[in-house]
Amino acid sequence: MNALEELTESFSRLPGIGKKSATRIAVHILKTDESYAQNLAQQLLTLHERIHPCSICGAFTEKDTCEICSDPSRERNLLCVVEQPQDVQTIEASREYHGLFHVLGGVIAPLEGIGPEQLSFCSLVERVKNENIQEVIIATNPTIEGDTTALYVKKLLSELNIAVSRLASGLPVGGDLEYADKLTLQRSFRGRIFLDM
Amino acid sequence: MNALEELTESFSRLPGIGKKSATRIAVHILKTDESYAQNLAQQLLTLHERIHPCSICGAFTEKDTCEICSDPSRERNLLCVVEQPQDVQTIEASREYHGLFHVLGGVIAPLEGIGPEQLSFCSLVERVKNENIQEVIIATNPTIEGDTTALYVKKLLSELNIAVSRLASGLPVGGDLEYADKLTLQRSFRGRIFLDM
Repeated sequence: MNALEELTESFSRLPGIGKKSATRIAVHILKTDESYAQNLAQQLLTLHERIHPCSICGAFTEKDTCEICSDPSRERNLLCVVEQPQDVQTIEASREYHGLFHVLGGVIAPLEGIGPEQLSFCSLVERVKNENIQEVIIATNPTIEGDTTALYVKKLLSELNIAVSRLASGLPVGGDLEYADKLTLQRSFRGRIFLDM
Repeated sequence: MNALEELTESFSRLPGIGKKSATRIAVHILKTDESYAQNLAQQLLTLHERIHPCSICGAFTEKDTCEICSDPSRERNLLCVVEQPQDVQTIEASREYHGLFHVLGGVIAPLEGIGPEQLSFCSLVERVKNENIQEVIIATNPTIEGDTTALYVKKLLSELNIAVSRLASGLPVGGDLEYADKLTLQRSFRGRIFLDM
């Protein structure tokens, strides 16, 4: 294998990149100014060293405490529970939510051997108790595992006298009834919102 | 921007990778064993230094002369003319062709300011004259520019008393008449092959 083939092989191991895309990317990098490759290489070399989970919420950060946890302007009585660190970025990009986050690190999935003890439920309960949280918004994915995990969180917090909510599930904006699957349509009906007259 | 966002930004500049794929890839690399990132970085650092065009045909190689040009078992009287170095890899993968290659480095595209003088036509004629080539197979893409370039190659070689052919254009294998565009169907008719009875 020459250097180009080796690079192609490495790229083709990334998610969503097949053999053809990998070749296209490798050739693109070869034809682009060398500084791009050097820069990308530097970023890869330092990535693991610079990024680690926030000691409070578990989101990706370069510091001990992430920017959200240490930002005094956030609504500090709202806590949004997500599955993965990258979910924090997705929600932040929507600019809809201005509270704090808590990353579980996954979902309860007995078939894959992931039980509650492997996820950060203990620290979640601690935080809700100690940080004067008024509402917990559960933003796990609308999948079977995500729903199970949401129910588990609800149970965990049931005696703490706080509001617990779950992100609405239903038709995506810009979507089409015709292409909605049965379960999504079912949720849209059950979660229907009455309009003020 | 933290290290993860920087890496995401770099990846999103690659062809075929949008913001979401770039995030997915960066998070994947962060969660994968660090050795993968280190290895990929090394490959990127040495890519431009190791890979350059073959001095004879123009394909990507690590040596002065590529493996195809220096392989005595190839059919050395057959020359396949392609647009880009990566086209050599694509044709090699098909295992259908066992001759030599010649990379033009692009196609004649007056609108983009690419004229014949920027492409390797001179060395093509030299090679055909000196290397005892019997047939030149033109494998430029079946686009307007590719066709124009093919015609130009044909004219260049017209007085050299060798066979000049062009790759067949028509319906892709496994394709469907219903989805074929007009031009492709037109070519399929014009290039139809009579069956022996």
